[in-house]
Amino acid sequence: MKLNIIALVTILTFSGLLCIGQSTQTAVVKDFKTSATTQEGKEYPQVNSEGRVRVQISAPEAKMVQLDIGAVKYDLIKDENGVWTGESAPQDEGFHYYQLNIDGASVPDPNSLYFYGASRWGSGIEVPAKDEEFYTMKNVPHGQVREHTYYSEINNSTRRCFVYTPPAYDQSGNKRYPVLYLQHGGGENETGWSSQGKAGLIMDNLIAEGNAKPFIIVMSNGNWRMPNVPRGERTAGSWPPKGWADGFMNSLLKEIIPMIDANYRTLDDQKNRAMAGLSMGGMQTKAITLANTDVFSHVGMFSGGSISLEDLEGAPGFKENVKLLFISYGSHELDNPRRGSGKEPKENTDALKAAGMNTHFYVSPQTAHEWQSWRRSLYQFAPLLF
Amino acid sequence: MKLNIIALVTILTFSGLLCIGQSTQTAVVKDFKTSATTQEGKEYPQVNSEGRVRVQISAPEAKMVQLDIGAVKYDLIKDENGVWTGESAPQDEGFHYYQLNIDGASVPDPNSLYFYGASRWGSGIEVPAKDEEFYTMKNVPHGQVREHTYYSEINNSTRRCFVYTPPAYDQSGNKRYPVLYLQHGGGENETGWSSQGKAGLIMDNLIAEGNAKPFIIVMSNGNWRMPNVPRGERTAGSWPPKGWADGFMNSLLKEIIPMIDANYRTLDDQKNRAMAGLSMGGMQTKAITLANTDVFSHVGMFSGGSISLEDLEGAPGFKENVKLLFISYGSHELDNPRRGSGKEPKENTDALKAAGMNTHFYVSPQTAHEWQSWRRSLYQFAPLLF
Repeated sequence: MKLNIIALVTILTFSGLLCIGQSTQTAVVKDFKTSATTQEGKEYPQVNSEGRVRVQISAPEAKMVQLDIGAVKYDLIKDENGVWTGESAPQDEGFHYYQLNIDGASVPDPNSLYFYGASRWGSGIEVPAKDEEFYTMKNVPHGQVREHTYYSEINNSTRRCFVYTPPAYDQSGNKRYPVLYLQHGGGENETGWSSQGKAGLIMDNLIAEGNAKPFIIVMSNGNWRMPNVPRGERTAGSWPPKGWADGFMNSLLKEIIPMIDANYRTLDDQKNRAMAGLSMGGMQTKAITLANTDVFSHVGMFSGGSISLEDLEGAPGFKENVKLLFISYGSHELDNPRRGSGKEPKENTDALKAAGMNTHFYVSPQTAHEWQSWRRSLYQFAPLLF
Repeated sequence: MKLNIIALVTILTFSGLLCIGQSTQTAVVKDFKTSATTQEGKEYPQVNSEGRVRVQISAPEAKMVQLDIGAVKYDLIKDENGVWTGESAPQDEGFHYYQLNIDGASVPDPNSLYFYGASRWGSGIEVPAKDEEFYTMKNVPHGQVREHTYYSEINNSTRRCFVYTPPAYDQSGNKRYPVLYLQHGGGENETGWSSQGKAGLIMDNLIAEGNAKPFIIVMSNGNWRMPNVPRGERTAGSWPPKGWADGFMNSLLKEIIPMIDANYRTLDDQKNRAMAGLSMGGMQTKAITLANTDVFSHVGMFSGGSISLEDLEGAPGFKENVKLLFISYGSHELDNPRRGSGKEPKENTDALKAAGMNTHFYVSPQTAHEWQSWRRSLYQFAPLLF
């Protein structure tokens, strides 16, 4: 009898789960809209008010087509014309990389715009966020994002950065501006912050509202390989990239900063120079700013670790010279210590505050190790600068 | 007997064709190299010295995978691991759009970089050209390409142009520069000229060699829809785009040119202002420059028609005010009058020259209605400007 009860409970539990599964399917809210990251003139991908992503593709001869997003694959359903359609479970607000899988081939969705991340150019989807207003394109004065190509002696190669100049930069005569050096994460590149990161729009809106001072932002490629490493051994996708700490720091200090100061109307002293980055870029920011306390005055690490009292022991001057230390995470990273570091970032930041540093700790609500956390981090960080 | 001889010749001819077909297959030159448009860290797509494009994709469950390039589909071959590989017939030198077909689904190659053309973001391949030196990235001073966002009252929307500023623009004090307004083709957008068109590199190299004067290039989005047209009816892919002549001309003259003159150090008179474009952009150039002879002094039409003596009858002042009329085509366009207009462009250009205009007619060797023709056209056109 006892066994039977257990069996009954087990059956009920599984039935319940199955019911939940089915009711989730039938309860999909039918308010899908074309996404902001859908190619012009295309109908799909779409997103509904729950954050489900719906894709569609014609593949008449295919046996199986899946939507691969958030590390889960969702089966699409084929109609009589060979057109496959299907949607994901609700996704967090913000931007996500995704792909399609057609009979075992992982490919970009031909209907989406493409972004560089996860070590590849591929599909991305924008799930509307309740707070998206801060990175929405508005009829306000816009800065420019400049593609700046240069030759790196240190890397023995032509490299590229993107430089955001604030609205009216070209009309402001001899006015000089502070500079933020802002780095992407691992598997990403110098396009990330101005594309899916919306850095330019975030700054345009903050400046228009009077909530941030106008400053220049330099978005460099922080991926680094040593010169003469064959193409097949490039490090964009490997972790940690060989030589990035020495290589990128060296280039940033000896090539990029002098080049920016020579080519733009910068305020070129320590108190007008900030560095921040996300994930790998946060770790680079930590390594570089701890080692160069006379170069940067404002430091931001977004989902990229934290700085402890112990770290300061090897970095004389950091506590005195750094006017702001900003640490942030997505809430889901802290929920799940495997992705972040649990309580440690907050505890470290509090300890530095108690020791007299100007620290800020920010948690992006209901987001993970993804761009919505970093957009919000920049939106919180920028008003505190300079 | 006569019939038999004809039969024999026929048989030999067909056998010969078959042999040629087979020997072409077996004679594929085995010197494939990773392409300039292959994603960093990826091995394929590759191109060999014949200009064949080889792609590879893992698709273990697929029944058929094809490479779709130059309006021909080439079957790929599957190996024991489910990886498909295959190559095209030799392609013309230069840049081509392409895609993969997996069990009936047309998708981008996940290993290529992506470009906007043929009314979609998708794969592109660079076939090395004997003359590629003129658009190769070199260690010379580089200009910048600026993403310039603005609000168009006429279109009631936020639009974007890219602006090339020549090397040393930011260090040259009060120096002012002439401006070329340079338009993309149908199914393309404002990204084309600076991405697959290599406009920045072409200018950097010309200026470094002293073969062109430094000038600003403005690359606008020439696709046009009337305000309040629903998204589904956008005109990026349709031909001719509804309202482009009035709409884009109106915006160019009343919004874009004044904005550029206000934001950049331009020489803002007619003799320092040029307009050129490819294909649809050439037709726009024709319509706009004929109607505004007091605005532009140098005119270029690349694979976009020509201007006849008859056209001048409705355009008083064009003959006197325009200092250069440059007409160009890819040779394969003129070989095949269905794509271009056969002899007419040359005859029209010669007639205007005979009438006293400074005209240039250029034919890009061994290229079609594709970007290599337009890169070469810019390379020929730019040294003649200003």
